[in-house]
Amino acid sequence: MYSIGVDIGGMSVKIGLVNEKGEIFKRGKTATDVAGGADKIVSDIAKVICELADPSDADLAGIGIGCPGTISSAIGVVDKAYNLNWENVALADMLGKYINKPIKVSNDANVAALGETMFGVGKKYTDTILLTLGTGVGGGVIINGELYEGAFSKGAELGHVVVRVDGEQCSCGRRGCLEAYCSATALIRDTKAAMVADKTSAMWKFSPDLEQVDGRTAFECSKKGDAAATKVVDNYVKFLAEGMMNFANVFRPQAIILGGGVSAQGKYLTDKLEAYCKALDHGFAGAPVFEILVAELGNDAGIIGAAALLF
Amino acid sequence: MYSIGVDIGGMSVKIGLVNEKGEIFKRGKTATDVAGGADKIVSDIAKVICELADPSDADLAGIGIGCPGTISSAIGVVDKAYNLNWENVALADMLGKYINKPIKVSNDANVAALGETMFGVGKKYTDTILLTLGTGVGGGVIINGELYEGAFSKGAELGHVVVRVDGEQCSCGRRGCLEAYCSATALIRDTKAAMVADKTSAMWKFSPDLEQVDGRTAFECSKKGDAAATKVVDNYVKFLAEGMMNFANVFRPQAIILGGGVSAQGKYLTDKLEAYCKALDHGFAGAPVFEILVAELGNDAGIIGAAALLF
Repeated sequence: MYSIGVDIGGMSVKIGLVNEKGEIFKRGKTATDVAGGADKIVSDIAKVICELADPSDADLAGIGIGCPGTISSAIGVVDKAYNLNWENVALADMLGKYINKPIKVSNDANVAALGETMFGVGKKYTDTILLTLGTGVGGGVIINGELYEGAFSKGAELGHVVVRVDGEQCSCGRRGCLEAYCSATALIRDTKAAMVADKTSAMWKFSPDLEQVDGRTAFECSKKGDAAATKVVDNYVKFLAEGMMNFANVFRPQAIILGGGVSAQGKYLTDKLEAYCKALDHGFAGAPVFEILVAELGNDAGIIGAAALLF
Repeated sequence: MYSIGVDIGGMSVKIGLVNEKGEIFKRGKTATDVAGGADKIVSDIAKVICELADPSDADLAGIGIGCPGTISSAIGVVDKAYNLNWENVALADMLGKYINKPIKVSNDANVAALGETMFGVGKKYTDTILLTLGTGVGGGVIINGELYEGAFSKGAELGHVVVRVDGEQCSCGRRGCLEAYCSATALIRDTKAAMVADKTSAMWKFSPDLEQVDGRTAFECSKKGDAAATKVVDNYVKFLAEGMMNFANVFRPQAIILGGGVSAQGKYLTDKLEAYCKALDHGFAGAPVFEILVAELGNDAGIIGAAALLF
């Protein structure tokens, strides 16, 4: 038995045949033809799938799709995906015209959480949270081994939980969301502000022009002892740790898994988070402690997690 | 078929026989003999139960217990309940020595959420959140008609979700928890501070001595137009609404139900919360809107919800 995982991104669609061990044994790819619209993208996906596998193969359990945006997973509809310029796209039905197999659709952060928990760094656990620290902050929740998307599959928006009332403006319209402090975008904003405030910071050597600042600038300079950079990193760690403890108090996961660009800081980041959380009883005195892990499936998490929707 | 609900409070234990419609058809009560210890309290409870019902009655499904503190519900153990001075009390086993029926134990806010959702104001819904606004802020979560307690039954601590990093000190050790802004205790703290800052406020007429200030002072004076009181209320509403939208983005409940002392403000409170949430798309543009309701089972929520653990 195997299934097909489809990972729709803004630039390309990655497709893989995935066995029950979570191993990708055949791969395909197509450009995301945003200008061509949903019909074109779906027909491109169908074409790649038919090249990779025989859709009538009895061993093929079905097709799972991870897609950015808000999804009505029960009916396989993408309600809204800004990057794709999609609104009310009946993705499962559209692909079903080409391929007569079960088709499931979920949000990209959700399927990454499923992939990492079933086959990645969280595989010894049943209850996990995944936070992706990228342009935004995405979230996925696994409860008792199953993906939890919230009612109407409209929950688990973990990046849009306010951790500082009246805080930084968030793209969602509210102020003080976790995303407004812990996305790479927020980290870059704070790094630039710290550089402007301290012209002597070593960060100016790492990124001589403000336009060159990225999510690594403050971390790399903090590692070398720069005070202004360390302040940026410590603030980032504080907000992320507080957000993590919030989700711990809500779900009490065994592990919180970090993915996305900022998670590349690895142990340097998780050690700091660990120390911060430990000083505050990981959120609640006497409650089970959660592990802090870094996602390990990388770019394959989307394909594997999408395929896992069928397992 | 019926079950018995036991609501353990710091002063008294309320016990009721509850039918499948959620109606209490027989009631009993005993004092909470905290000094006597867990053995004494359990034997007192067993005595009342045996007076109210025949424990061998085939129609009796079992006994549900709502208890303050942190609970390991899978094994019916109270890990810690400060008010009762309990630690590692094997409540289900202890009561099981008197009564040979299934016995389930859960946290008091959790069972109230179950009661209000199955038989109270939330009965048309399957996904709800209950927030109790009392001395502290308690939380209960119902997902798809079932009580969700978090992994190890140690989640759903909704009062201990930080909404303002570096904010007011909370009893749990962290700063800025929802409880530190939205409990009656926090409301009273803020009311007193506003009175001290404004000696001309009408709140001084309502509560001539700071010791007389309670959760109604600011609300009642705000209704009559006092500016300082209105500022306190608006701030309370802001933090509560932000907390509610946070939980909406996590769980996307159909309704958020408010219980506890402050919820007695009823429509005056919910109208303000509604207006605040509406201006921010109830947390997430395009997502389903949640209703804001006031709990209606009152003091019976504990008994009914505890009994409902067996339904």
